[in-house]
Amino acid sequence: MSNALDRAQLEEANAEFYAAFEEGDLDRMAALWADGPYAPGVSCVHPGWSMLRGREEVLRSWALIMANTSYIQFVLTDVRTDVYGDQAVVTCNENILTAGDDSETGFLAGGSVVSTNVFVRSGGEWRLLLHHGSPILNGAEEE
Amino acid sequence: MSNALDRAQLEEANAEFYAAFEEGDLDRMAALWADGPYAPGVSCVHPGWSMLRGREEVLRSWALIMANTSYIQFVLTDVRTDVYGDQAVVTCNENILTAGDDSETGFLAGGSVVSTNVFVRSGGEWRLLLHHGSPILNGAEEE
Repeated sequence: MSNALDRAQLEEANAEFYAAFEEGDLDRMAALWADGPYAPGVSCVHPGWSMLRGREEVLRSWALIMANTSYIQFVLTDVRTDVYGDQAVVTCNENILTAGDDSETGFLAGGSVVSTNVFVRSGGEWRLLLHHGSPILNGAEEE
Repeated sequence: MSNALDRAQLEEANAEFYAAFEEGDLDRMAALWADGPYAPGVSCVHPGWSMLRGREEVLRSWALIMANTSYIQFVLTDVRTDVYGDQAVVTCNENILTAGDDSETGFLAGGSVVSTNVFVRSGGEWRLLLHHGSPILNGAEEE
């Protein structure tokens, strides 16, 4: 269901998402998210938040979060990439180091976040369609 | 990117997921989740949990959760369905009424959960490939 090139490109696109956040670069973030016919389907859940929908609303949230994050760094573990034609699902654990979080944004920083990132191939490039991050609150999964 | 029939079938499949949970019917739950070549890609995040991967591990978690849930009822709101060929993304808010939750399972019951459900069309049927549910912890998204 996938080939090595797709997987390599997807891992790069997934890494770009976190790099754009680390750099606080909204232009890079905007370039990664799907656009055009996919714009209405763009969806994002920040940890502890409800669903944001549509490219405009999602990018507005990133502008807000970036403006309130002075420092953040991700170490990704358990990155898994599954390709289904022109769609793909990348899941990973975000191990987060952060400082200067403004609690007014509601963004939960620090600790571990589990993330689902859905990509679509558009114009030959993998673009982010959906991001769903959620806090890992317990160790029940280790049973 | 979608037609009315696809959307109707997806809403039905999405409703079946919650109905199977409400009924505590593991066979119905198992029938809904993707199988065959999709089995390794089956992924699930219960609210507050980390990622479970693979059909077997995911169904084992449902058996555990169902065994520890004496009563649960979902009212879904903000259901949104986006179809991309043979893949689809359904997002919704789960408004949960529950009783008899066993805290040993780590399952967070009650209140609101935001959910991403990714489906694949397999053998002419929409099957659940990924479920990611997370607790809504604040009202920051309403800014």
